Amino acid sequence: MEIIKHFFQEMGTLLSIPWSFVILELVGTLAGAVSGARLASAKHFDLFGAFIVGIATACGGGTIRDLLIGKVPFWLEDPIFLLTCLFGLVWVIIFRKMLVRQDNTWFLFDCIGFSLFNVIGIQKSLGLGFPTWAAIVLGVVTGAGGGVLRDILINEVPLIFRKEIYATCCLAGGLVYVGALHLGWKIEGAALLSCIVAIGIRMLAVKYHWSLPYVKGLEE
Amino acid sequence: MEIIKHFFQEMGTLLSIPWSFVILELVGTLAGAVSGARLASAKHFDLFGAFIVGIATACGGGTIRDLLIGKVPFWLEDPIFLLTCLFGLVWVIIFRKMLVRQDNTWFLFDCIGFSLFNVIGIQKSLGLGFPTWAAIVLGVVTGAGGGVLRDILINEVPLIFRKEIYATCCLAGGLVYVGALHLGWKIEGAALLSCIVAIGIRMLAVKYHWSLPYVKGLEE
Amino acid sequence: MEIIKHFFQEMGTLLSIPWSFVILELVGTLAGAVSGARLASAKHFDLFGAFIVGIATACGGGTIRDLLIGKVPFWLEDPIFLLTCLFGLVWVIIFRKMLVRQDNTWFLFDCIGFSLFNVIGIQKSLGLGFPTWAAIVLGVVTGAGGGVLRDILINEVPLIFRKEIYATCCLAGGLVYVGALHLGWKIEGAALLSCIVAIGIRMLAVKYHWSLPYVKGLEE
Repeated sequence: MEIIKHFFQEMGTLLSIPWSFVILELVGTLAGAVSGARLASAKHFDLFGAFIVGIATACGGGTIRDLLIGKVPFWLEDPIFLLTCLFGLVWVIIFRKMLVRQDNTWFLFDCIGFSLFNVIGIQKSLGLGFPTWAAIVLGVVTGAGGGVLRDILINEVPLIFRKEIYATCCLAGGLVYVGALHLGWKIEGAALLSCIVAIGIRMLAVKYHWSLPYVKGLEE
Repeated sequence: MEIIKHFFQEMGTLLSIPWSFVILELVGTLAGAVSGARLASAKHFDLFGAFIVGIATACGGGTIRDLLIGKVPFWLEDPIFLLTCLFGLVWVIIFRKMLVRQDNTWFLFDCIGFSLFNVIGIQKSLGLGFPTWAAIVLGVVTGAGGGVLRDILINEVPLIFRKEIYATCCLAGGLVYVGALHLGWKIEGAALLSCIVAIGIRMLAVKYHWSLPYVKGLEE
Repeated sequence: MEIIKHFFQEMGTLLSIPWSFVILELVGTLAGAVSGARLASAKHFDLFGAFIVGIATACGGGTIRDLLIGKVPFWLEDPIFLLTCLFGLVWVIIFRKMLVRQDNTWFLFDCIGFSLFNVIGIQKSLGLGFPTWAAIVLGVVTGAGGGVLRDILINEVPLIFRKEIYATCCLAGGLVYVGALHLGWKIEGAALLSCIVAIGIRMLAVKYHWSLPYVKGLEE
């Protein structure tokens, strides 16, 4: 146990986030990889394609953020992220017939993922000296960018531009996070509140079929 | 008035371009955001999707250029660009039924945008020490990249690869710009001439339906 | 002759690779540009579009790698790469009716390209201090990324995610390369062996219609 805790502490230092977040971050990464690999497999992508789409879904948002802020992508600094994605692919292969029954679990893991990625993106950006507004934008990029990259790779119109309200949840979570920090909260508490708010909105949105409207009357 | 002039001077210093260009740059940004948001709305993208596609159209070329030359994207350094894109989205929402009647105005604004983005891209690259040929290429990336990113996001084949001759106009404008600089012209004069040439070619192309040929006989 | 040798030596120093690789790298670049321009022309892309898709195919993998490792893309450091792509476009225009008869030659050039790009990507990453596993991943990105970028631009599902096994060949070649280096081989020898292995697997895959399986039972 001591070794595992030490490992996550090391990881936390590397990622400049509290070590207790690291394990949740890997849960979110796994959820992204499973969802991407599953979608790609449904479109008859081969194992390599499913692996790449899984990586893009899980790590794509953070990668776009890192490119924007001028850092080497986080998954090149520690093999744990690509290994987690590989594990996700293996899971899809082994449990392909049981994935539907696991849907609620994966939905929860996915919620942990996007809401936490959002906070990590904000925290990393603030740490590099970006202003608050830019950090919130970069949080949305981190939380919602993976889904966009996934949909580009599988040649679909990005889902979050039409149905999902991921980005709105990230924005709400981001505002809560920086608000709590400004009120003197510690990072851990602010992150927890931010995730609860973002996940709460998303769950309500799924339950009540909330979605953003579109501008009508512009069809070609 | 003094405050506004001061604001644009500050912006100009930040962007390393003459402050008088900044207001025209925002006009071009607005045109891109309106065109992107309009196109996305026509494809039933929700408000968030329309906002992102607007940003991609308006700021995408400059973003790709900044990533290539190793700089943090310009729109992360000042909120004015994202705010302009937000204003463009609001404009589309409010005036959606009058956009067709405003087409000539938006075409003009769009021309100001791409021709000026081209010059800004060249100037920024030269300022970082890139050789002239690379700066001209980066100008084309700045002027024409937004349209490519927009079309990737809305899952269409990039328009400028089949119909529009944006890139050719950028290339002509770029050659004129660096030529004028080499002849000892000041930046402002060279930029003005470059934009006139680029816009002129584009207007003639639209009027006379000019387009580049394609290599025939390779159909699958 | 002395001048040409000197030129390739200069290039080699610039690219941090043995100069003898440079000429083969340009052969690979040409193959990528021809394949991209050809595919784009078949979809009625105009000359500019065919040029860009050629560049994306030939230089896209190295560009993604350079963005990930925080370097200015290699093709912005020397005009020879874009000029090679332009030459590829001119070749497609002139020999469009003879390209089918040249198919075996282009297949060979393409094999030289992807296997060498893989090695160059690994070597460049190792030179920057990336760990071995990351360098191998970046080699795959360099060797296989161009095809993905090409397919995004022509709005198709990436071929290497469904049919081709480029990436598997790159991975095998990469393992051989770093293995040989660890055994004390010189860069040239390790690179040669790596390319032979990668090309060999690819040729066998084409001959015997090898492909990776996909995860069945997940269709929507």
